[in-house]
Amino acid sequence: MIRLIDDNNPKAFSLLKQLYPHSGNAFIIGITGSPGVGKSTLIDALIFEFRKLDLKIAVIAVDPTSPFSGGAILGDRLRMQRHASDEKVFIRSMASRGQKGGLSRATKDAAIVLSAMGYEIIIIETVGAGQAEFDIASVAHSIGIVTIPGTGDGIQAVKAGILEIGDIFIVNKNDRPDAQAAVLELKMMLSMRNSNTLGQILNQAPRDKFEICPQKGCSTWAPRVLKTIAQNGTGVKELADTFLSHFDFMKKNNILDLKKKELERIYFNSLLKDLAMGKIELFMQESMDFKDALNQIEAGLVDPITAAEHVVNHLMVTRNLKVQDN
Amino acid sequence: MIRLIDDNNPKAFSLLKQLYPHSGNAFIIGITGSPGVGKSTLIDALIFEFRKLDLKIAVIAVDPTSPFSGGAILGDRLRMQRHASDEKVFIRSMASRGQKGGLSRATKDAAIVLSAMGYEIIIIETVGAGQAEFDIASVAHSIGIVTIPGTGDGIQAVKAGILEIGDIFIVNKNDRPDAQAAVLELKMMLSMRNSNTLGQILNQAPRDKFEICPQKGCSTWAPRVLKTIAQNGTGVKELADTFLSHFDFMKKNNILDLKKKELERIYFNSLLKDLAMGKIELFMQESMDFKDALNQIEAGLVDPITAAEHVVNHLMVTRNLKVQDN
Repeated sequence: MIRLIDDNNPKAFSLLKQLYPHSGNAFIIGITGSPGVGKSTLIDALIFEFRKLDLKIAVIAVDPTSPFSGGAILGDRLRMQRHASDEKVFIRSMASRGQKGGLSRATKDAAIVLSAMGYEIIIIETVGAGQAEFDIASVAHSIGIVTIPGTGDGIQAVKAGILEIGDIFIVNKNDRPDAQAAVLELKMMLSMRNSNTLGQILNQAPRDKFEICPQKGCSTWAPRVLKTIAQNGTGVKELADTFLSHFDFMKKNNILDLKKKELERIYFNSLLKDLAMGKIELFMQESMDFKDALNQIEAGLVDPITAAEHVVNHLMVTRNLKVQDN
Repeated sequence: MIRLIDDNNPKAFSLLKQLYPHSGNAFIIGITGSPGVGKSTLIDALIFEFRKLDLKIAVIAVDPTSPFSGGAILGDRLRMQRHASDEKVFIRSMASRGQKGGLSRATKDAAIVLSAMGYEIIIIETVGAGQAEFDIASVAHSIGIVTIPGTGDGIQAVKAGILEIGDIFIVNKNDRPDAQAAVLELKMMLSMRNSNTLGQILNQAPRDKFEICPQKGCSTWAPRVLKTIAQNGTGVKELADTFLSHFDFMKKNNILDLKKKELERIYFNSLLKDLAMGKIELFMQESMDFKDALNQIEAGLVDPITAAEHVVNHLMVTRNLKVQDN
């Protein structure tokens, strides 16, 4: 099923519709960070901790690869293979199909399948490159940002905007001499996150709306900073516990339901765009009208701008729709 | 006008339609490469050389910035400001609006405006990050890839696929001790570009179709490798001359017209998708049908997958279209 999704197979769509009602109970964790910070090793150690609690766990590793390389880079995943014989652990890489929207859609689709299959925790790992790390905010309930101590003067550069989407910040490779400086710098940056100066940036962050308190006086989750050494498992139990307490916190404060509704809305919007785009692409492949337009452009009878406008106006009905009063 | 395009203002669209018939004569050069290879300094020096030939020149610098930072990073452009008083030089930064497709569409739109204004050479500078460097192949007639000597063992890593789209390769900062090794490595990599092993990769490159020879026996452009020191202008005259001879070569071999037709087809396709997406977005903002669907999803009366399918089927007419026989 996940292979069908990854291949963008139309069969996946009808199967997904059947599975959807059975999904929705899993806790979806997003883990992101720059290449080389040790995300895979950390997730491997996290699986270990969650398995101690007998939780059924699935990992989807998203590889935003070059449009030319085709497949996903699977090397990193190999280190998680010690869990391969564990029936309650599922690990899968998903390739980018060269589409930003497509990547988060495919991840969401896969999460629906895994949730319907009864996986209690779904970890989505994305490399912090380009847009991918922000896309995770439209799928995950809790987001962990992994970083490492920098070059003596604090943490490795944290990309603009990434501070705003994190719930738990992890300083990995904590045995490095400059680890304490990294933790302090991160905490300082996070304390600024709520200040007025950064308020405007916060308003642009997709995650911000989730922080809205459902009823007056309820508490909001203050982002945590944790230290780990993924290689030997140091601090990973605490990390697993913190993710679970974030989940509990969201449930108790009615935040989880709000967040799920918001993610469902985002999913609906992206489905709408993807399906519409799919129809446009089908039209480009099959319709004589499209071919006629192309021929006319090539012959210089019409410019591409006028032709595109004409085609879209004929293809899409918006005249008979109910329009809002305001 | 370019500000309207950059702001995604709907007014730009009708103006663009009027300008389109007057565009099409400019030579569009794309310059790409990783951050720090000296693209801006090189373009500054290129402007100088093209101005010696009294060519009217425009530069569009594309900044794929974080979706959270909002504006474009203009710092790099400052160094080109010595041309600010020259009436026949136009320099403009364009910001990414967080959309991959949108970025190359906006660049193409701007090139149409500048071409209609009589600029003879249009240079489009993109940072080699993510997809941006490949998008340039859908706008430019000639592509220069800028690189620098690496860490003693050849050139800085060249991203997969990037070799296939380049017409002219520039090893900048040629005063570094390992420059000669870089040039040799690049030439070796380029010689492999035409081998059978890389043939399959080549077939995936968007640029590949342009290399098709219009009539049997015509010659194809062999990619050039040039050395420059942008800081003091060394090698830049030769680079300017090579771009111009590539332009001549394409004209003489009938390649330019084919390429322009192909770029026009790509432009039409992206316009079609953008306009359709624009209608979908308008629908999401204004239609009661969309609001109804959202409410039903929120109330749990319908799942988002079924709802999206239903909405798209009603929104888009594909039943009455002429369908191709094959």
